[in-house]
Amino acid sequence: MQTGDILLRDLEASGILRLTLNDGARRNPLSESMLTALSTAFAEACRDPEVRVIILAANGPAYSAGHDLKEMTSGRAGPDRGRAYFTRILGMCSDTMQAIVNCPKPVIAEVSGIATAAGCQLVASCDLAVAADTAQFSTPGVHIGLFCSTPMVALSRNVGNKHAMEMLLIGDMTSATRAAEIGLVNWVVAPDALRATTLEIAAKIAAKSSMTLATGKRAYYEQREMTLKDAYDHATRVMVENMLARDAEEGIGAFIEKRSPQWQDA
Amino acid sequence: MQTGDILLRDLEASGILRLTLNDGARRNPLSESMLTALSTAFAEACRDPEVRVIILAANGPAYSAGHDLKEMTSGRAGPDRGRAYFTRILGMCSDTMQAIVNCPKPVIAEVSGIATAAGCQLVASCDLAVAADTAQFSTPGVHIGLFCSTPMVALSRNVGNKHAMEMLLIGDMTSATRAAEIGLVNWVVAPDALRATTLEIAAKIAAKSSMTLATGKRAYYEQREMTLKDAYDHATRVMVENMLARDAEEGIGAFIEKRSPQWQDA
Amino acid sequence: MQTGDILLRDLEASGILRLTLNDGARRNPLSESMLTALSTAFAEACRDPEVRVIILAANGPAYSAGHDLKEMTSGRAGPDRGRAYFTRILGMCSDTMQAIVNCPKPVIAEVSGIATAAGCQLVASCDLAVAADTAQFSTPGVHIGLFCSTPMVALSRNVGNKHAMEMLLIGDMTSATRAAEIGLVNWVVAPDALRATTLEIAAKIAAKSSMTLATGKRAYYEQREMTLKDAYDHATRVMVENMLARDAEEGIGAFIEKRSPQWQDA
Repeated sequence: MQTGDILLRDLEASGILRLTLNDGARRNPLSESMLTALSTAFAEACRDPEVRVIILAANGPAYSAGHDLKEMTSGRAGPDRGRAYFTRILGMCSDTMQAIVNCPKPVIAEVSGIATAAGCQLVASCDLAVAADTAQFSTPGVHIGLFCSTPMVALSRNVGNKHAMEMLLIGDMTSATRAAEIGLVNWVVAPDALRATTLEIAAKIAAKSSMTLATGKRAYYEQREMTLKDAYDHATRVMVENMLARDAEEGIGAFIEKRSPQWQDA
Repeated sequence: MQTGDILLRDLEASGILRLTLNDGARRNPLSESMLTALSTAFAEACRDPEVRVIILAANGPAYSAGHDLKEMTSGRAGPDRGRAYFTRILGMCSDTMQAIVNCPKPVIAEVSGIATAAGCQLVASCDLAVAADTAQFSTPGVHIGLFCSTPMVALSRNVGNKHAMEMLLIGDMTSATRAAEIGLVNWVVAPDALRATTLEIAAKIAAKSSMTLATGKRAYYEQREMTLKDAYDHATRVMVENMLARDAEEGIGAFIEKRSPQWQDA
Repeated sequence: MQTGDILLRDLEASGILRLTLNDGARRNPLSESMLTALSTAFAEACRDPEVRVIILAANGPAYSAGHDLKEMTSGRAGPDRGRAYFTRILGMCSDTMQAIVNCPKPVIAEVSGIATAAGCQLVASCDLAVAADTAQFSTPGVHIGLFCSTPMVALSRNVGNKHAMEMLLIGDMTSATRAAEIGLVNWVVAPDALRATTLEIAAKIAAKSSMTLATGKRAYYEQREMTLKDAYDHATRVMVENMLARDAEEGIGAFIEKRSPQWQDA
């Protein structure tokens, strides 16, 4: 089951969906076709009750080098010098990044190589990230006169001001270890342990109630943008509904009775 | 002077109030009675001019295991399946957490054992936290189908997105060392140094002007929710009033004259 | 070319403007004359097309000890006990800090010694900071009854809640190493490498398109205060305009053609 050749789609019986950027020879650019494939895959995964957690991986030496600059440049040919095209492609990219945040299933980036510009943004947009110790990250737009303005939206929601500015103003590579220190990735592992580690984490999440994960993930990103008081009012309402849902009754009951819970959608 | 048996209250002459969760055999659950005791104690401490700083400690092997799941479950018996009860108890809990933030006296968590779910939220809600190196932290609601939605309000105001999501989506224990790295606690010490270290920090704060601490703590949490411009406008007004207050005049005068200041309320 | 004796101004041919606080014998206080000199220098640097990046350094053993307490105290002599004066001087200080954030040129703090109170705020307000390993940071207002309320606006936009509260409530010195860990500075180097390291970083930034840096820096601070959706809408619009600008066309073209870009304003 594949969404075109440039994005592989593998769904395990356990509910782990593995999406693999598969344009490795070109360093997995977020071309128009890749963005279309990604947004289609996320839309399907959001709806598919079989999908419990999503891994976003990549084939080839690079995770993703960001936008396809040759494709972007070809957009300049129009009478508006590309304005309509750039608006459309950058809008598609921003929509895809927000689709990851808004997806009710947790999304884990499995980062094997360089993740630059919108490729770095992809990692920042995922809920969790595992990186090989050989992975590297950058927002190098300043090198080519195009500040990484949309990538910084995701970046600055993961790392502090000084660290974000360091990456954005200088554009140099950040090592996986440093990325972990500043909060861009959660875990750094040896390259040959990357896939197994990510699967292990995904399996833990896949064993949870999908309803509970969806409820919590949505509320998480909602409350982050509220004042403390509004956040508490909102989260309290969410938690009351969660308590009244079947899986919380089952989960709490199982905990008290010292047995394993059986989730409704498992 | 004690607020019931489940919460011990010890006020030192130096103005350090030590509140100790004292339901250790049950892992200090935030039961209805514990929440009542805590919110009463904080309301009293806020008003009490003798109290200059508050330590929130716990007896027993656990700091706090969060909500009392058996008590919560008993609430399901009603005709509304517990909706009114859950709304009330979760509202009490959120109010207690906000009472810590809104308390004019600085509050220091002294974390001896596991701090999970609303117990972890309690630590996150305090202004400062000292942990034994044996302490552990988690938001494990996903294990029982009940996402830690109210705990995440406090958690996500202390740690970055990736770190918060790691704790929330997986639910595993976070070590004290890791908690310090991600910003959930300030200091990690050997268990037998926990109490002395916390007291030392509390004593430093108790030596300050209570008016100044109250002014600053309040303004801190207010300005964090504002735009940069509004935050500066607000903080500038606050600082002008602070300059005009007796303790600033005394403190600055003492500094210039190289003597110790005498605070109005000391 | 100097803006008064207390602030030295040196512009290199490469576009690196070095501003040096030069009241070292008094620990570079942010006196009324220093604030005037700083705000004048930033206003000029913002307009000056020759300036591509700004280093904010200091002569003497201290970076800056913050407000001039003797000068502040002399303001108490008036019939309003200083209210109008404090409002003016603290407003000037807050305006200067915001001028750094709003300056279209990146600003790098080069921190040699202690940076306390508004001196610490100065470091926090810069986009990037390099510190000697002997540098120290604090917001010690609590020692003198005057909470560092305006410094905390900048501090809390760089470091987490617990770390900000630790500095604000206790007022002790934070080492350069710790400052790097919590996100207040980017790099810590040996004192004799401080100037060269800062220059190296500044040179990297000076080699970029000033238009691109200005566009990105402005959008960065704007989007940080927006919801995720608004931030993406805004950053997408900014990036479309950036794509249509001459320097992005040149930079992307140069990248594709594997040559060095020639910026319009270089």
